[in-house]
Amino acid sequence: MNDSTKKPEHIHSVRVRYADVDRMGFVYHTRYLEWFEAARTELIRTMGKSYCELEEEGTFLPVVEAYCRYRRPVRYDELVRIRTIVGEVTKSKLRLEYQLWGEEDRIIRVEGYTSHCFMNASGKPMRASQSLIDFFLTI
Amino acid sequence: MNDSTKKPEHIHSVRVRYADVDRMGFVYHTRYLEWFEAARTELIRTMGKSYCELEEEGTFLPVVEAYCRYRRPVRYDELVRIRTIVGEVTKSKLRLEYQLWGEEDRIIRVEGYTSHCFMNASGKPMRASQSLIDFFLTI
Amino acid sequence: MNDSTKKPEHIHSVRVRYADVDRMGFVYHTRYLEWFEAARTELIRTMGKSYCELEEEGTFLPVVEAYCRYRRPVRYDELVRIRTIVGEVTKSKLRLEYQLWGEEDRIIRVEGYTSHCFMNASGKPMRASQSLIDFFLTI
Amino acid sequence: MNDSTKKPEHIHSVRVRYADVDRMGFVYHTRYLEWFEAARTELIRTMGKSYCELEEEGTFLPVVEAYCRYRRPVRYDELVRIRTIVGEVTKSKLRLEYQLWGEEDRIIRVEGYTSHCFMNASGKPMRASQSLIDFFLTI
Repeated sequence: MNDSTKKPEHIHSVRVRYADVDRMGFVYHTRYLEWFEAARTELIRTMGKSYCELEEEGTFLPVVEAYCRYRRPVRYDELVRIRTIVGEVTKSKLRLEYQLWGEEDRIIRVEGYTSHCFMNASGKPMRASQSLIDFFLTI
Repeated sequence: MNDSTKKPEHIHSVRVRYADVDRMGFVYHTRYLEWFEAARTELIRTMGKSYCELEEEGTFLPVVEAYCRYRRPVRYDELVRIRTIVGEVTKSKLRLEYQLWGEEDRIIRVEGYTSHCFMNASGKPMRASQSLIDFFLTI
Repeated sequence: MNDSTKKPEHIHSVRVRYADVDRMGFVYHTRYLEWFEAARTELIRTMGKSYCELEEEGTFLPVVEAYCRYRRPVRYDELVRIRTIVGEVTKSKLRLEYQLWGEEDRIIRVEGYTSHCFMNASGKPMRASQSLIDFFLTI
Repeated sequence: MNDSTKKPEHIHSVRVRYADVDRMGFVYHTRYLEWFEAARTELIRTMGKSYCELEEEGTFLPVVEAYCRYRRPVRYDELVRIRTIVGEVTKSKLRLEYQLWGEEDRIIRVEGYTSHCFMNASGKPMRASQSLIDFFLTI
């Protein structure tokens, strides 16, 4: 049901801004996690509902774990692509995985994942409904 | 009542982090405004009440204008000082002014100001009470 | 020569990210200046040369002044548009002006400007060549 | 040689700024990694040499892996402490570990680590000298 041929997937593009780059000339390492968030937000939007609407309906997805592996640097003004896939979704946890590569060379620069729990509007952890799980399992 | 000898004033120190510096090797220009916010927060704290408490009591101070003049660059790992003074306070507006200099050379690097209105918890502009005005006029 | 009918102009779009919004639910005030930078970078790119190439050729445009007027808040997940125009360009200074509005309501939310000097690769101020001035005066 | 009684350790304090907090009212998840960087920079400084000097001598420590586990949220204006310890240091890799807790409740909120390689000024990976390894193994 969650095999690789069916995984929701989305490609998000980002142009590196001046503010993203440090004095080594490389993208500062926390910026990738901000882009991963933009990427998963756009993935969710392609599913027919925005993350903003999810929050308005009382479903929050706070990050409980984040991991990045920096393989090769990204530089100012490069155009990069981020693929997001739904790695795992259960009643208590959602795991999203990311791959980022350069538009020109198509070489993987950064990989990572984020894990999320489900939280309600009063800040309490909650179990995901089956419809929410299905939402993340299908496009 | 608001002459320069009585102006509330506060010196706030910041160590420049790696994340603050761009590929020219200089502090990225928007970071100073973040530091100005930290500086005014500490100024307010010295007055015996935190900005956080002000918000909990229903007084918000959203920024309505911000200005920076960048005189000389600041570099990675420098220690800088920020002086904040209350430039003007009326029923509808608070203006704070900032000067930032290097700890070692004591030369002014950046100057600026922010203007704030008074807003209540429902997001509506409001007139400042006399006690709030007095709060900003005294230490 | 620099009259309003000929001013270079460019519209840049930004989707508000989670990281951009503060606990009032509004875009944090320094983020607009980051977006203005992205907007002027895209304006320069439409002129046939990227800002990155300008830097590689030895022309840097550090910000010497920045100003923002916050008229109405922008919220999470909104799509906003930024118009950038070249306000003034002389041998020693470039001034760019920005207007930001919501895609849906078309109401101006934030306005501002940045002033830039011309700097060479060794960090010294320099006079702009006539071709550089012309570059900013034409599309 | 690297047992827990000898591990270099440093406590770094951070006051949560307005810019650090998202619309849930929690510190945005990438900010912790910025604070971890500030924390390791101060740890290195206590060893008698700043990271800035290390870079000037030609030793760079780019992040090759970063991980965070978010246990409990941190809120605006809280004062937090970060303990940094040197987890592992070899000729090709430095691993630093971080624990962050609230000043008041002393409960762990966030834990994580960063791994670094050694890079020279031309951007090439290099083997750490024994004196550099010793530098990280002692206070």
